[in-house]
Amino acid sequence: MELKIDVHTAAARLANIVHHTPVLRSRTLDDLVGAEVSLKCENFQRTGAFKFRGAYHAASRLPAEQLAKGLVTYSSGNHGQAVALAARELGVSAVVLMPHDAPRSKVSATLAYGAEVITYNRYSDDRQTLGADLAADRGMTVIPPYDHPDIIAGQGTAALELLNEVGPLGMLVVPVGGGGLMAGCALVATHQFPSVRMIGVEPAAGDDTRRSLYAGRRVAVDVPHTIADGQTAPQPGELTFEINRRLVESVVLVTDEQIREAMRFAFERMKIVIEPSGASALAALMSGAVERLPARVGVIVSGGNIDRERFTAITMPQAT
Amino acid sequence: MELKIDVHTAAARLANIVHHTPVLRSRTLDDLVGAEVSLKCENFQRTGAFKFRGAYHAASRLPAEQLAKGLVTYSSGNHGQAVALAARELGVSAVVLMPHDAPRSKVSATLAYGAEVITYNRYSDDRQTLGADLAADRGMTVIPPYDHPDIIAGQGTAALELLNEVGPLGMLVVPVGGGGLMAGCALVATHQFPSVRMIGVEPAAGDDTRRSLYAGRRVAVDVPHTIADGQTAPQPGELTFEINRRLVESVVLVTDEQIREAMRFAFERMKIVIEPSGASALAALMSGAVERLPARVGVIVSGGNIDRERFTAITMPQAT
Repeated sequence: MELKIDVHTAAARLANIVHHTPVLRSRTLDDLVGAEVSLKCENFQRTGAFKFRGAYHAASRLPAEQLAKGLVTYSSGNHGQAVALAARELGVSAVVLMPHDAPRSKVSATLAYGAEVITYNRYSDDRQTLGADLAADRGMTVIPPYDHPDIIAGQGTAALELLNEVGPLGMLVVPVGGGGLMAGCALVATHQFPSVRMIGVEPAAGDDTRRSLYAGRRVAVDVPHTIADGQTAPQPGELTFEINRRLVESVVLVTDEQIREAMRFAFERMKIVIEPSGASALAALMSGAVERLPARVGVIVSGGNIDRERFTAITMPQAT
Repeated sequence: MELKIDVHTAAARLANIVHHTPVLRSRTLDDLVGAEVSLKCENFQRTGAFKFRGAYHAASRLPAEQLAKGLVTYSSGNHGQAVALAARELGVSAVVLMPHDAPRSKVSATLAYGAEVITYNRYSDDRQTLGADLAADRGMTVIPPYDHPDIIAGQGTAALELLNEVGPLGMLVVPVGGGGLMAGCALVATHQFPSVRMIGVEPAAGDDTRRSLYAGRRVAVDVPHTIADGQTAPQPGELTFEINRRLVESVVLVTDEQIREAMRFAFERMKIVIEPSGASALAALMSGAVERLPARVGVIVSGGNIDRERFTAITMPQAT
C-alpha cells in the first residue's frame, strides 16, 4: 500500500485531546479464561467510545478552509457523537445522520455536543449516499466512520497506548464493525510486536468480515439484527479490508447471549459498563471462541454508551 | 498519639498485593461541579472495595503463629469479603459475621472467597461481642473493620496512590462509615500536603461522625436506615475519631436520593458501577453539599459491590 497510515504521528496529534484510558485487570477473569487478560477501556474514552480518536484525528488534519465549512457523518451512534465533539472542539459545525432506531442515549448525547441530527431508515436508506448529498449541498466534509487512513490511524492509538503500558502481548482481540479499529490496532501492534496474533470479533448475525476473509474478497451480508448496534456494517471497508486481510489471523463470532453474559460479568465483577458492541471481544474470550490462548492477551473494550433502561433490558435473565 | 500509623510502610507491604486502581476524570463532571475532579476508583480494587487494603495489611502483620489460627470479622459486607480474601491469600481460615439483611452479592462473594459466614441481626445483636466470643472460642484473631492502626494505615494507601498520581489537591472528599478510610487518608494527605482540606461524607440518616465532631466527643445514633449499607456504623471508632477530629475540616451529609443521582451519573456518563456507600463522596460534590471548592478536588469512590437487580431497583426513577 502506498497510503501512509502512521499511528505514532496520530498519537502525537491526539495527546492532550483524547483520554489516555486505563487498562483494567481481573484475577477472576484471568482464572476463567486461563490467560493474563488486559482490558483497554475505551468505554472511558471521551464520548464513551474509541471513535473519538479517529474522528478528531481525521477532522484535525483537514485544511483550515475546508474544516471551517463543517463536518458531516453517518453513524449508528458512537461515531456520530465523536464527530460532534470533534467539531465542537475544533470550533466548526457538524451534521450527523443517524438511524431512526438508534438508542435514545446516543441521539441525545449527539445533540448535546451541539450537532444537528438527521435520521434515516437503517434498513432501506443508503447512508453513504445521503451523507455525500448533504456534504455537496452544504460544502461540508464527510468524516466517514472507518474507511479512511486518518480514521484508521487515530483508532490505532488505542492499541499503541495499551502496548506502551503493558508491553508485549501474544494476542490482541478487537471488535470488528467496519474494521477501522481493527485495522489501526493491527498496523501498530504487528509493527511493535511482529508475532502478536490479531483476532477480530463479530456478532454471529453480522459476520461480513469473517466471510470476506474466507472468500478473499469483500462480501456483503444482510443488515444484521443484533444487540451489538455498533457492529452492523453489512460489509468491510475497502481500505480496512485490505489491511485486515493481511494482518488479522481470524475473526471469531459471538452470539447476542454471549455478549449479554460478558456485559453482566463486566458489571458485577469488574464494575464497568460496556455496551453490547464494546463487550464482543470480552465475550469471545469468555465463551471460548478464541482458541490456543497465549499467556498474555489484550482486549479492546470499545465503548460504553448504553442507558440504564436498555442495559437492564438486555442483561436481565428473562430477556434471553 | 503514640500509636505508629505509617501509611508509606503499609504501601510498601501492599505493593503487588492490592491493585493500583485507576484515577478517572470526566469533563462533564468538572463542568457540573466547577472544579477539576479526580476520582480514585476503589470500586476496581480487589474484592470491589478499598477494604482489602486494610484487611490484608492488618492480617499480614500478625505474628505467624497467631495468623495460622485464622481470622474472624464482622462486616456489613465489604470488609468481610476483604478479610476472606486476605485469609485465602495468606493461607489461613476465616469466619465472617454478616448482618442477616446484607446484600446477596456480598454474602455469596464472601463464601466464594472460602470464608465461613455466620449471620446476625443488624438491629438487635452486638456484632463486636459476637465476634469476640467467636474468636475466644476458636483461638482466632479479630480483624476489626476500622478501629485499628494497621487497618487505618492500609486504607490510607488509597489516598497515597491518588496523590502520587495527580499531585497536590486542594481538597479530598472521602466517605465516612466507621472512619477508617478517612483517618488513613487524612493522615497521609495532610502529611504530604498540609493545606489539603479533608471533607468527610455521611448519609443523612447516619450522621454520627458529623454529630461527634460538633460535640467534641463520640456520639452514637440509631442504626441508620439508608441505602448506603457500608456507612451504617452507629458511632465513630475511638481511634478513628481521635484522628479525624484533628484532621477533618467537616463532614457533610447526603440524602439517599442524592446518592442515587450520583450512581446514575457514574453509570451513564462515566461508565462505572458504584455501590451506594461508594457514591456518597461523589454525591456530596454533585449536590453542592461541599462549599468553597478549590481548583483541584480528589474523591474516593470507595466501592462497587452491588448486583444488577439491586442497582436497577435503586437507580430507577420510580424507586425514589
